[in-house]
Amino acid sequence: MSCDIPRIVMKFGGTSVADLDRIRKVAQTVKKQVGAGCEVAVVVSAMSGVTNQLVEYCQTLNPLYDPCEYDSIVATGEQVTSGLLAIALQTMGIKARSWSGWQIPIITDDAHGRARIKQIESAALIECMQAGVVPVIAGFQGIDENKRISTLGRGGSDTSAVALAASLNATRCDIYTDVDGIYTTDPRIVKKAKRIKAIAYEEMLELASVGAKVLQTRSVELAMKEQVRVQVLSSFEDHDPSREGSLPGSLVVSEDEIVEKEQVTGIAYSLNEAKVVVKGIPDFPGVASSIFRPLAEANINVDMIVQSSGTNQTTDMTFTVPKTDLLQVQQLLEQAKDTIKFSQLLTDEDVVKISVVGIGMRSHTGVANIMFKTLAERSINVQVISTSEIKVSVIVAAEYVELAVRALHTAYGLDQMND
Amino acid sequence: MSCDIPRIVMKFGGTSVADLDRIRKVAQTVKKQVGAGCEVAVVVSAMSGVTNQLVEYCQTLNPLYDPCEYDSIVATGEQVTSGLLAIALQTMGIKARSWSGWQIPIITDDAHGRARIKQIESAALIECMQAGVVPVIAGFQGIDENKRISTLGRGGSDTSAVALAASLNATRCDIYTDVDGIYTTDPRIVKKAKRIKAIAYEEMLELASVGAKVLQTRSVELAMKEQVRVQVLSSFEDHDPSREGSLPGSLVVSEDEIVEKEQVTGIAYSLNEAKVVVKGIPDFPGVASSIFRPLAEANINVDMIVQSSGTNQTTDMTFTVPKTDLLQVQQLLEQAKDTIKFSQLLTDEDVVKISVVGIGMRSHTGVANIMFKTLAERSINVQVISTSEIKVSVIVAAEYVELAVRALHTAYGLDQMND
Repeated sequence: MSCDIPRIVMKFGGTSVADLDRIRKVAQTVKKQVGAGCEVAVVVSAMSGVTNQLVEYCQTLNPLYDPCEYDSIVATGEQVTSGLLAIALQTMGIKARSWSGWQIPIITDDAHGRARIKQIESAALIECMQAGVVPVIAGFQGIDENKRISTLGRGGSDTSAVALAASLNATRCDIYTDVDGIYTTDPRIVKKAKRIKAIAYEEMLELASVGAKVLQTRSVELAMKEQVRVQVLSSFEDHDPSREGSLPGSLVVSEDEIVEKEQVTGIAYSLNEAKVVVKGIPDFPGVASSIFRPLAEANINVDMIVQSSGTNQTTDMTFTVPKTDLLQVQQLLEQAKDTIKFSQLLTDEDVVKISVVGIGMRSHTGVANIMFKTLAERSINVQVISTSEIKVSVIVAAEYVELAVRALHTAYGLDQMND
Repeated sequence: MSCDIPRIVMKFGGTSVADLDRIRKVAQTVKKQVGAGCEVAVVVSAMSGVTNQLVEYCQTLNPLYDPCEYDSIVATGEQVTSGLLAIALQTMGIKARSWSGWQIPIITDDAHGRARIKQIESAALIECMQAGVVPVIAGFQGIDENKRISTLGRGGSDTSAVALAASLNATRCDIYTDVDGIYTTDPRIVKKAKRIKAIAYEEMLELASVGAKVLQTRSVELAMKEQVRVQVLSSFEDHDPSREGSLPGSLVVSEDEIVEKEQVTGIAYSLNEAKVVVKGIPDFPGVASSIFRPLAEANINVDMIVQSSGTNQTTDMTFTVPKTDLLQVQQLLEQAKDTIKFSQLLTDEDVVKISVVGIGMRSHTGVANIMFKTLAERSINVQVISTSEIKVSVIVAAEYVELAVRALHTAYGLDQMND
């Protein structure tokens, strides 16, 4: 069973397979990887726009559509791409065949529309690869135990690819997308933003959840759990797959694989949060619960909770919530005013959350202090602070977002990273 | 197992499900049938235009595409429609679920792109219907024994529907299409053309193969073999399904079910054939074979063979071939001139084949004579004649097509059929 041939799972997103020309280009990329002596399995998304069209059909017929039928309908997009890429590969002389989720099968739970993979029967795929045939797998989909088609949620093809890489014991999972990697920060704000060559799963999760939309969060969690090495690459550039060291893109790996642990790997920001301040709450045990229970029951995601002393034995509670939920939060708290007994409810939508992330923080001190000092030098007032083992986040007024991100990028030495 | 509830298979073609509005209209038609107390299974085609788009993708990537991949790609069209119709039905309060070919499964041979159904496992569908859920089945598709998706060829959803009706022991298979039935002749030529209320399988086969493109020929053959009663209906008209007697459309059934057997049921014509005359062949045993073997080897479909005496112990051979094959036929015969030893090869593309069809011919004499007399009265010269048990076909000059068809329609009393 064991062999020394590297086994690579290559995943191509919707923009990478948007039309027949791009599908041909993808086939060339796969051909190069095969030519480099690898066993290759390919995972594809739907051609961009196709899934949206199918979702619109469902929503138009019935906004409360049956998720089982939705899954059966939208899963066809990936089925089409997998067949077309198989034909494109065959046309270039590469043996290939398409696999739908049910053919493998990829077994999921029955949470249709956002299913989770339970099991992948990889025997047939391994047989396929060992016979020199490239399996081209429809991403995003599986079947539940009743053989009904299920899908993994938007961006789910990333998760398909990582799960397949784990199941196939692949050397690496290459995610080809429309960006060429993960950057130290948003290049639209900071021209000197640099591609991160290697990033730890934990860092990626912190960066993804605060804005870097390169990989589906769940796929990173799965990669971390299964220890799958993920390479993020641009499908619009040419790579030489025979030399991993020279690969462009960003490698998402275990912390152990990262030799030089930077204090700060990246800086993320999010304009999607609003600040809520509940002032003048009598300071008694259980007060936090009286505020957050109604929000939890309404499935509102509360972030960055800070409690501070007020005056006269009262306390102030500050936290952030998604902007889209702010109105509901205000209503819920006003309704609970008799229980919470607060004196004042303040909200602010004109804020930005800025986070510096790096596993190096664990062994370096003073990372937070550099942040506060840098912002203070620009007279940027920090309204809320929250820290974790590998992240420091602050809330500041939204107008400072570019200034703050640029200043921090310089302050943490990210402008000078080796290229 | 037995029950008195009528079980109807309803099939809707591509134009009937062309957009969401039409899918909603189809759902209403199904709802009426369910409301009439029937167990209903539905078979759908792809939304019109979808299959063409997918076929074009395949052909653009590679004109010699892998038919296995082609099948996997084009079968998605029906899968989408089945899901959408299920949602539309649910929205109207009718329990429904979609079924793809592999879910049932419908097992076919492995002749991808033109597969034949070998077996349908109908147990799950019957269970579904008996639970009060309408199965909405993706037509045109099945799986081969290796679980790869197969398709039945263009128009294959008709065959799916008839095969399912046989397997489900259905009372009737209703084919909803963009015409409201089968006509005594082409209504574009003869304004008085009448809808045929009941037509025998054999007649339908003769009419279909000479031009009436309402049902896929193979579906009629299968209906005849399995004795499935097929009703052709327009999906753009309203029907009252509770009264079969009042159904518009045309019923395709066994000869036994047809009480009044007309001498002539319908008149068909085809402008797609060319006439070939091979003159002055030495009349020896095996001469026919020397002409037709090379054509058979080239897969050319020869029709209406007539041999007549020439002069001086020679013979003339006249036959028709598809116009698209005429050039190749000329080349093949010229190449075989040394073997056949004919004196002259004549061809004529300006001809039309006109056929009168009717199971009543078996018990009525003089049907052919009416044809010859009618044509002679209009000074239309008959060039070739061929007859079968239920059909008389002639070749005449193409310019007479409308005149001849109209005259024959009147001569056989078809203008006066009861409505």
